[in-house]
Amino acid sequence: MKKINWYPPVILGLLALLVLTFGALVVSRSDQEQKVTTLENTGQQTFEWKLVTTWPKNFPGLGSAPERFAKKIDQMSNGRLKIKVYGAGELVPAMGVFGAVSDGAAQVGHGAAYYWKGKIPAAQFFTAVPFGLNAQEMNGWLHYGGGLQLWEELYAPFNLIPMAGGSTGVQMAGWFNREINSVEDLKGLKMRIPGLGGEVLNRAGGTAVTIPGGELYTALQTGVIDATEWVGPYNDLAFGFHQIAKYYYYPGWHEPGSILEIIINKTAFEKLPKDLQAIVRTAARDANQDMLDEYTARNNRALKELVGEHGVELRKLPDDVIAHLKTINDQIMQETAAKDPQFARIYQAFQDFESQVIPYHRISEEAYYKTRDH
Amino acid sequence: MKKINWYPPVILGLLALLVLTFGALVVSRSDQEQKVTTLENTGQQTFEWKLVTTWPKNFPGLGSAPERFAKKIDQMSNGRLKIKVYGAGELVPAMGVFGAVSDGAAQVGHGAAYYWKGKIPAAQFFTAVPFGLNAQEMNGWLHYGGGLQLWEELYAPFNLIPMAGGSTGVQMAGWFNREINSVEDLKGLKMRIPGLGGEVLNRAGGTAVTIPGGELYTALQTGVIDATEWVGPYNDLAFGFHQIAKYYYYPGWHEPGSILEIIINKTAFEKLPKDLQAIVRTAARDANQDMLDEYTARNNRALKELVGEHGVELRKLPDDVIAHLKTINDQIMQETAAKDPQFARIYQAFQDFESQVIPYHRISEEAYYKTRDH
Repeated sequence: MKKINWYPPVILGLLALLVLTFGALVVSRSDQEQKVTTLENTGQQTFEWKLVTTWPKNFPGLGSAPERFAKKIDQMSNGRLKIKVYGAGELVPAMGVFGAVSDGAAQVGHGAAYYWKGKIPAAQFFTAVPFGLNAQEMNGWLHYGGGLQLWEELYAPFNLIPMAGGSTGVQMAGWFNREINSVEDLKGLKMRIPGLGGEVLNRAGGTAVTIPGGELYTALQTGVIDATEWVGPYNDLAFGFHQIAKYYYYPGWHEPGSILEIIINKTAFEKLPKDLQAIVRTAARDANQDMLDEYTARNNRALKELVGEHGVELRKLPDDVIAHLKTINDQIMQETAAKDPQFARIYQAFQDFESQVIPYHRISEEAYYKTRDH
Repeated sequence: MKKINWYPPVILGLLALLVLTFGALVVSRSDQEQKVTTLENTGQQTFEWKLVTTWPKNFPGLGSAPERFAKKIDQMSNGRLKIKVYGAGELVPAMGVFGAVSDGAAQVGHGAAYYWKGKIPAAQFFTAVPFGLNAQEMNGWLHYGGGLQLWEELYAPFNLIPMAGGSTGVQMAGWFNREINSVEDLKGLKMRIPGLGGEVLNRAGGTAVTIPGGELYTALQTGVIDATEWVGPYNDLAFGFHQIAKYYYYPGWHEPGSILEIIINKTAFEKLPKDLQAIVRTAARDANQDMLDEYTARNNRALKELVGEHGVELRKLPDDVIAHLKTINDQIMQETAAKDPQFARIYQAFQDFESQVIPYHRISEEAYYKTRDH
């Protein structure tokens, strides 16, 4: 998954929007307070909020969650809390979402915590850890395993309240124009892969590169890169990678259950009456579940189309390659924890949860999947 | 999972409540309309609803969903929709929930669709099908695969609106005092197992029996039955099965991702203003996700305690036993479909979704779980 997830045809329009961004920012800075109106007939206040996202507006899957969140809140509050959704670059650039919500230029943001790893390395635990928790496990950890509380503590200094705001499920290992038959084949591999996964690839002898979404298709087509990860069949089919890549590799290992985030400006949230606060929290939980449901249904349909109609060749990463990547990942996680006490503390909690859920899911979810292989 | 899920200590109190049930029913029949009040200061109507469940009040996991649902609605509606939760037998018996909500004696019910299989065999698709969809897949099918619409059509003649109201995840195969090393060992096996799973056991040469929850502990202890399924580690630990059973078997095959249901009286729902309708629907989605999160976190903790502190011996059902049960299940599903056009129609839709999600989850969720086995 990547911060700048637009389709090639959308890129020109977005570039135009990016040019406009600084102008829009000036306007928003002078209007930092949320708009509050009191209705004369009922004595009830109404609120107008801005929601900024790291995705182009209405981007399939990822971008439909903030729209759903805003719509549900409008319906449930009978119009007392109106939220206007802005795509990446419309009000602030994708990577400006955290700052804009933190300082109140917008009241809500939708994105992914690992985008802020430059500022807060430990934020990555709340999106995805290679070989870590999948979507069901992340939701268990966040809501009944103490995870959300750690996330709230991490964001409190930034005047932000975080909530889970969707999940893509397991992401695919990606599209490759080079076969991966052994750990040797990782050497020299130029691949677009962000975050912790990218660090793992670098240490395995490859080169993780950062390429904006709009340039990715051409980069893979012309051989500037050998491979790219994206999301999963639903988003990948729409992007058209099957037209320019030879192999579609599984299993995903770098983002086993990416959780998206909804961040809310704490000052704005506390100005809401209790009923609207409850509506906001419940709408977030709704959006969180809904996105996974959407990906589950649409990924499976898209995979059938990719394989059945477009003749995509599915390939499995060899077991020894997976084991090698896992060993490297453990090293990187431990080294990062040794340098960053905040990272270390959350890593410990994450591992505690893993130490219980992995054995349990081995005899429940995983063992069940295997019964269907017979 | 079973309709009468109480702990032994609770049984006497519940029996007393059951005795009172018919009296309570008379009262409720004379008060079929929901209570509606108009607040003078705002002109807004308030509503009082009754929610009847198939579980004892506050039963861990299953019983906490209706409480959460009612509480969230109270908070979000600022008290305009008050829902009082009744445990099984308090207002109507567990098996009277469907009828009570259908005829308006209560406005909401919480239970499981497969309890109504005597009236509607096809209802079983909306709880669990042996070797069918797990929790994530059920949610994908219901909300983005057309499943919910089929469920709504199925319940429409009963003036009921169904919604997903929680999931337990994969249930365990159960507690056994007899080893299962081959298909021969299923012959003569007396086991408490409900629904389609019970039919499969019978055809495999075993005897599926129905025993109320309160008598189950003694029945297993004294050898009246050889085995029983229940839910999973969280509920099973609380029940104390580890004190009287030798083996804890996996994988669960009979209830791979049981979905609970919230049923709402259509007439009552349509009397609500649009904002309260949206609040009810979103609260259901919240409860649906929340229960799976709770089971995911608490099952894993409970399994650790069962194995680590109570020395429970985990056993795996042999592959050929699983394959045998699966073959029998396919036969039973096909025979039932041949006799019941409604069952056949939903079975076809269920299989269409399976034909896509099973191959996709084989290379995503299942393949990912396997990377963690290295």
